[in-house]
Amino acid sequence: MGPMMDLQTVRKNAADRLTRACRVCRQCNGVACAGQIPGFGGVGTGSSFIANAEALAKRKLNLRVLHDAGRPDMRTSLFGLDLSMPILGAAVAGVRVNRMDGITELELAEAMIGGSRLAGTIGMGGDGGDPEVFEATIAATAEAEGIAIPVIKPREQDALIESVLRARDAGAVAVAVDVDAAALVNMALLGQRVEPKTAEQIREIVRAADGPVILKGIMTPEDAVIAAEAGAAGIVVSNHGGRALDHTPGTADALPGIVRALRGESGENGTCCRGGGQGSGQLAQAAGQAAGRAKSQIAVLVDGGVRSGVDVLKMLALGADAVLVGRPLAIAAVGGGAEGVRLQLEEYAKQLHVAMMLTGCASLADVTGKVLFG
Amino acid sequence: MGPMMDLQTVRKNAADRLTRACRVCRQCNGVACAGQIPGFGGVGTGSSFIANAEALAKRKLNLRVLHDAGRPDMRTSLFGLDLSMPILGAAVAGVRVNRMDGITELELAEAMIGGSRLAGTIGMGGDGGDPEVFEATIAATAEAEGIAIPVIKPREQDALIESVLRARDAGAVAVAVDVDAAALVNMALLGQRVEPKTAEQIREIVRAADGPVILKGIMTPEDAVIAAEAGAAGIVVSNHGGRALDHTPGTADALPGIVRALRGESGENGTCCRGGGQGSGQLAQAAGQAAGRAKSQIAVLVDGGVRSGVDVLKMLALGADAVLVGRPLAIAAVGGGAEGVRLQLEEYAKQLHVAMMLTGCASLADVTGKVLFG
Amino acid sequence: MGPMMDLQTVRKNAADRLTRACRVCRQCNGVACAGQIPGFGGVGTGSSFIANAEALAKRKLNLRVLHDAGRPDMRTSLFGLDLSMPILGAAVAGVRVNRMDGITELELAEAMIGGSRLAGTIGMGGDGGDPEVFEATIAATAEAEGIAIPVIKPREQDALIESVLRARDAGAVAVAVDVDAAALVNMALLGQRVEPKTAEQIREIVRAADGPVILKGIMTPEDAVIAAEAGAAGIVVSNHGGRALDHTPGTADALPGIVRALRGESGENGTCCRGGGQGSGQLAQAAGQAAGRAKSQIAVLVDGGVRSGVDVLKMLALGADAVLVGRPLAIAAVGGGAEGVRLQLEEYAKQLHVAMMLTGCASLADVTGKVLFG
Amino acid sequence: MGPMMDLQTVRKNAADRLTRACRVCRQCNGVACAGQIPGFGGVGTGSSFIANAEALAKRKLNLRVLHDAGRPDMRTSLFGLDLSMPILGAAVAGVRVNRMDGITELELAEAMIGGSRLAGTIGMGGDGGDPEVFEATIAATAEAEGIAIPVIKPREQDALIESVLRARDAGAVAVAVDVDAAALVNMALLGQRVEPKTAEQIREIVRAADGPVILKGIMTPEDAVIAAEAGAAGIVVSNHGGRALDHTPGTADALPGIVRALRGESGENGTCCRGGGQGSGQLAQAAGQAAGRAKSQIAVLVDGGVRSGVDVLKMLALGADAVLVGRPLAIAAVGGGAEGVRLQLEEYAKQLHVAMMLTGCASLADVTGKVLFG
Repeated sequence: MGPMMDLQTVRKNAADRLTRACRVCRQCNGVACAGQIPGFGGVGTGSSFIANAEALAKRKLNLRVLHDAGRPDMRTSLFGLDLSMPILGAAVAGVRVNRMDGITELELAEAMIGGSRLAGTIGMGGDGGDPEVFEATIAATAEAEGIAIPVIKPREQDALIESVLRARDAGAVAVAVDVDAAALVNMALLGQRVEPKTAEQIREIVRAADGPVILKGIMTPEDAVIAAEAGAAGIVVSNHGGRALDHTPGTADALPGIVRALRGESGENGTCCRGGGQGSGQLAQAAGQAAGRAKSQIAVLVDGGVRSGVDVLKMLALGADAVLVGRPLAIAAVGGGAEGVRLQLEEYAKQLHVAMMLTGCASLADVTGKVLFG
Repeated sequence: MGPMMDLQTVRKNAADRLTRACRVCRQCNGVACAGQIPGFGGVGTGSSFIANAEALAKRKLNLRVLHDAGRPDMRTSLFGLDLSMPILGAAVAGVRVNRMDGITELELAEAMIGGSRLAGTIGMGGDGGDPEVFEATIAATAEAEGIAIPVIKPREQDALIESVLRARDAGAVAVAVDVDAAALVNMALLGQRVEPKTAEQIREIVRAADGPVILKGIMTPEDAVIAAEAGAAGIVVSNHGGRALDHTPGTADALPGIVRALRGESGENGTCCRGGGQGSGQLAQAAGQAAGRAKSQIAVLVDGGVRSGVDVLKMLALGADAVLVGRPLAIAAVGGGAEGVRLQLEEYAKQLHVAMMLTGCASLADVTGKVLFG
Repeated sequence: MGPMMDLQTVRKNAADRLTRACRVCRQCNGVACAGQIPGFGGVGTGSSFIANAEALAKRKLNLRVLHDAGRPDMRTSLFGLDLSMPILGAAVAGVRVNRMDGITELELAEAMIGGSRLAGTIGMGGDGGDPEVFEATIAATAEAEGIAIPVIKPREQDALIESVLRARDAGAVAVAVDVDAAALVNMALLGQRVEPKTAEQIREIVRAADGPVILKGIMTPEDAVIAAEAGAAGIVVSNHGGRALDHTPGTADALPGIVRALRGESGENGTCCRGGGQGSGQLAQAAGQAAGRAKSQIAVLVDGGVRSGVDVLKMLALGADAVLVGRPLAIAAVGGGAEGVRLQLEEYAKQLHVAMMLTGCASLADVTGKVLFG
Repeated sequence: MGPMMDLQTVRKNAADRLTRACRVCRQCNGVACAGQIPGFGGVGTGSSFIANAEALAKRKLNLRVLHDAGRPDMRTSLFGLDLSMPILGAAVAGVRVNRMDGITELELAEAMIGGSRLAGTIGMGGDGGDPEVFEATIAATAEAEGIAIPVIKPREQDALIESVLRARDAGAVAVAVDVDAAALVNMALLGQRVEPKTAEQIREIVRAADGPVILKGIMTPEDAVIAAEAGAAGIVVSNHGGRALDHTPGTADALPGIVRALRGESGENGTCCRGGGQGSGQLAQAAGQAAGRAKSQIAVLVDGGVRSGVDVLKMLALGADAVLVGRPLAIAAVGGGAEGVRLQLEEYAKQLHVAMMLTGCASLADVTGKVLFG
C-alpha cells in the first residue's frame, strides 16, 4: 500500500477482513464482542474488557488554555531507547486461534513491530499454543534490528527461559512475560502448560535474560512489589485485555494503587522513568542493576481500553510511564500492514499533542494527577 | 443421552423445550423475564432477581499471578459430607406451576439431585402446593442414598414436621425449610397455608429433625442470629431467587452483614465450616449439638444470581461457605437430565479452579475478602 | 360492569380507551410519556416523574421471616376517619385537558371517590380551568356522603375560599389545596390566576375551612414547617406527579428531610398520626385546634410513583402516614369505573399485606426505617 | 416570516434544512451526534458534550410554593447594558465547516445577534478559518448598533488584536476570545494558527480592547484567577460545547469550583455582577478599571447544555451571573431567522419565570445554592 493510505481506509479494509474476529466498532469498548473468544472479545460476560473502557471514561480532564505550553514535547525513553511518544504496540498474535482473516502470523508480527518502529516507538510480539506464533515474533524482532519486545507465555520454567534466550539472541531491547496468561485455556488444550510464577522463578528469568525483563499482567500492589523486588525492569498493568479472568477491575482503576506502592504515597510519578534523553543505547545496559533495582526505578506501563491520545494522557496522569495499545493496532495491521500501524500510532500522537496542549503540559513530566478533574 | 453431550447442546435442548418458562438467555440476570410468574422470572418488577445479578457484577477481583498456588484445591465438607466443590444444586421444582415443558416432576428432582451427586456434591429437592412435588423430592432423595437436601415449605407446624420426618426417613443428609416462602401466593391458593416461623417453632423443628436443619431465605443479621440460636445447622442467604418480595437487595449485598453478625467483626470466614476433611459421615451426627450450636458454627450458604465459577469465588470471598445454583441447573436438567446438571456443575468447578488460581488461592481457606478489589 | 371484572380486564379496557393520554405501560415510570402534556406525562424532559419512580426503586427492603407477625393489620385513621388501608386515591381530573377518552368528568370523579370509598378509604377530587371539573368533584363528594377530599387549585384568595366553603358544604372530610399548581400554565391560559400562597393566606384558608386543611405539593422542610405553623392538618409531599416543575427530586427523596423537620431528629414516625382507632367521626372535629397544631401532629401524606404495596411500605418506612395513588387509579377508573378503582386499591392492599408480613410488621406502627436495607 | 410563526414551526423548518449538521433531537444532549464534526456533535466520543447535559440533569431543584414571590424579576445587567433576562446568545458560526444548509454566514450572524437583541439581550458572533465568518460577525454587530459580542479565535497575537480593534470599531459592547479553541484543527488546516494565551498576552489584549474583554473556555479555578488578574471583565465557563477536548467535565460541574476561587469560600454569588440597574451605557466605560479588576468583580458566564429555563436557573444557582445558549439558538436561526431566535429566548425566559416562582425567587439575587436539592 502506498503513502496515500489514510486511517479511515485502513479501518474499512480491516472491517472487510476481520468479520469473524471483530466488528471494528466505532467505539471499541468490549460491549459488542462480549465473551467472543475465539475473536477479540473479553472472557465470560466481557466485564473485564468493558471495565477497562469504563475506568478510563469516568476520568475527566482539566481543560487549561491560559499558559505557554503551546508546543508540547511527548518524547520519552524506555529501557535505554529514545521514543517519539509514550505509546507502545501491544502484543496481539495468534491469527488462527483468534480467527483473524486476511493476514498471516508473520505479517501480523511484522506489521505490529515494524509499524511501531516506523512511528518511532516499540512494538511487541506474541507467543502462543501454536509454535508459529513465537517464530513470527522472533523473525519480526530480528528484522526490526531488535526494536521490539517479545512477550512470552508463562510456560514451565525451562521452556520459558529457552524462549527468553531466543529473544535475547534476536537482539530484543527487552523481553516480557505475560504472567496473566497463567490459566489460558487454549495453551493447556494444546498441551503447553502455563503457570503462575513465584518470586524465585522471576529472579531466575531475570538472571537468564541478562537484560530488561517486563512482567505483563500485574493488577495489584502486592504483585507489583514482588516484580520489582525480583528485579523486573518494568511491569505492564494489564488484565490481558479482559481475556484472563472475568470481573477484574479496569486497569485505570488498578493503576493508582500500584503506582503508590512502587513510588510511595507522595504519588510523584515520572521522576525517574519518564521523560526524554537519559541515554540511547538499546540493549541490556540495565542488566547489571536488575537484581537490586529499587521499586521506584521500575517502569510502569499499562494497557486496557486506550483508544485515543486523551486516554493516553489519562493513563500517564494516573502514574504510568507509557501505555500499550492492542486491538486498534491489530485492526490497523490487518487493514494496512505496518503503514496502518504507523498511521494509527501517529493519530494517537497527534491527539496526545492536542491533549497535552489543552491541559497545559509542556512535557510528559507535567502530566500528573493535576490534569484530572475532581 | 450419551457421554458425548456437551453443555452447549444441553442448553439448546432446554431452550427448545422451555419456551413458556424461560428464554435461556446468554446472561441469566432477570431482565428478560421480569415479573414472569408462572415462569422463571422475579416477582413484580423483577427487581429482586436483577439485584442479585447486579450485586455480584459490581464486585471486582484482584488478579494475582505471582505466587505458587498453581493447583487450587476446591474440596470442602458440609453437614459431615465431603464435597468436590463448594457448589450445591438449589431446589427448583413445580413443573406445572412454573410451566416447565418436556420434563416430569420426578425427572426434574432426579436430575437435580442425581446430577449434583454425579458431580460430587449435593442437590436439593423442592416442595409445593401440588403434593406430587414433595413426593418426587423424597423419591429422588432415596434413590440418591440420602445425598440430597429436601427443602420444605414453611407450612403449618404439624404438616411441616411430618415432611421433615419423611425427609429424615428417606436418609437425607440434611433438611431445609425455605422460610422466605412464608407468603407464597400459589401455596395459599391451593389451600396449603404457609407462615413466618418463630424461634420457638424453629427449635421444635430442629428437635424433630434429629439432624442438620437449614433455614433458607435469611436476608438479615437479625434472622441469622435467630436461626443460629434456635439450633439451625445452616442458613441459606436467599431472596428466593427474587420471587418472594419485590425490591429486596441482592444476596451478595446482604451476605457480608450476616456473616459479620455470625462470625464477629473480624470477618474471618471459613475458620470452622469451610475446608476439607472434617469427617465423612453423612447423616445426623451433628444433631446432639444442635440446640447449643454456637453462632460461629452455623454454615452460611448463599444463592442468587450465581452464574459462573467467578461468581462462586465472589460469594465465598464475601463470607459464604458454599453457594447454591438454581435456574441454570434447572435449565441443564431440562436439556440434559442428570448428565446435564453434572456438566453444568463441572463447568462451574473448572471456572472456579481458574479463578482461584488467578487470585492466588491454594485452597478455599484462602478465599477471603482479600481477593476482592477496592 | 359486574363482579366478574378483574384488574387485567380493567387495564385492558383502559388501554383501549386512553390512547391519546397514556400508554398504560407495564411499569408506569414516566419514561414512555416524558413531556406529554396534554397527556399523563411529566413536564419538560419528564425528569420529575421519572425521579419519583427512581427514588422508590433504589430503596431495598429487609426480608424478615422469623417472627410471629403472620397476620399484619394495615388499618389506620386520618382526619378522624377509620381507613382499611394507608392508601388514598389522589386527584386526577380534567378529562378534556388531559385528553382522556371514554369517560366524562363526573364519571371520573365518581369512580375515583366512590371506588376509594368502596375499598374503605378516601378518594380525592380535582379542580381545573374548566369549571366542570370542580362541579364534578363537589357532586361526587356529596354522593359519597363526604368521604372525599376535594383538592382546590391555589386560585386568588377569594375564589379559593369560595371553593373551600363549597367543599365544606358538601360534607367533605377534609379539603386540600394543591399549592404546587401555583404556576400551572393551563390555568393561566383560561384566565384563572393561580399563585404561591403566603403563610398568612394559609391561615386565612384554615380559618375559613373550619375543618382539616391539607396542603399538597410540599417538597421542602421549610414549606412543611410553614404549613404546620399556619395550621394545616396535613401535607402531601408531592411534585404534582412531575407536572409542576422539571428536575425536582423524587418525593421519596424529599420525604425523609421533611419528616425530620416535623417530627424531630429522632425520626420516630407514626407516633401520633398513624395507627388505628383514634376516633371515627368524619367532619371537622379537629378544627378547633388547627391554629395551634403542633408540627408533630400534622399528617404527612405522600404521592409520586407509588405503583405497588411494596412502594406503599417504602413510603411509610420513610416516614409517611399514608400515600396517595394517582395515575394507576385513573387508569382503573377509565377501565372499570368505581369497581376498577376498588380492585386496584385492594390489589395494593394485598401486596402491602404480603410486604408487611415479609418484613415482620404486625401493624403500621412497626413500619419504620428498620424495614429498609442499608 | 411573519409574526404568526411559533417555535414548533421554527424547529420543524430547521430539521428540514439541517440534515447534514444536526438531527434537531427532542432532547439535545450530544448522544445522537457524538463525534460528528463537521456537524454539531462533540469531539471524539462526544463525552464532553454529553457531560454538559448530564452535569445539569443530575441537579435537582427545591420546589417552594409557600411564599410571596409570585412575580419574579429576571432582569439583569452585564458590561453596562441592561438585559431582559440572564441569557445570552452564544457564538455559533461557520456554516460551511459545520455543514449548515439553508442559511448564509451573514444571515446566521444577523439572526443570532439580531434575534438576541429583539429579546432584550445580547448575542455573540463567531470567528473562523474562513474570513467570511468574522466579516459576518462585524457586519451584524454594526447592524445591531453594537449590542453584540464578537468572539475571536485565539490567533497569533497581532492578528488577534487586529480583530479586537475591528470589533471595537464596530461598537461592540464587549469582545470575547474563545481561548478553548487553542487547538482547533480546522483553524490550523486553513493555515491560521491558534495558540494558548499567557497572562501577559491577555493583559495586552485587555489594554488594546479599551473595553470589556471576556475569555471563553475557562474550565479551572487556576485559569479563572489568571483571567481575572489579567484584567478580563468576564469569563465564560465553557468546554466549547464539547468540541475542544474529549472527556472534559460538564460545565455545571466545573462552575462551582471556579466561582469559589473568584468569590471566596462563602459562595455568595451575584453580589456584584448580577442584578439590575447598575448603569445602561454600552461601550467601554469599564475599561479604566480593567487592569486592576478584583476577582470578585469579574462576570462569570457559562454555557454547555442549557436547554430550558430550568437549566438557566440551575446554572445561576451554581454561581453563574448569566448563561449562553448555542445550538438551540442556531437551530432557531436556521428555522426562523432573528424571529426564531427571539421566540426561543422568550420561551426560555417564560420557563425561567416559572422556575423562579416555583423555587421562591423574587429576583436573580435570590437564585443561590439554596434552590438546589440535597
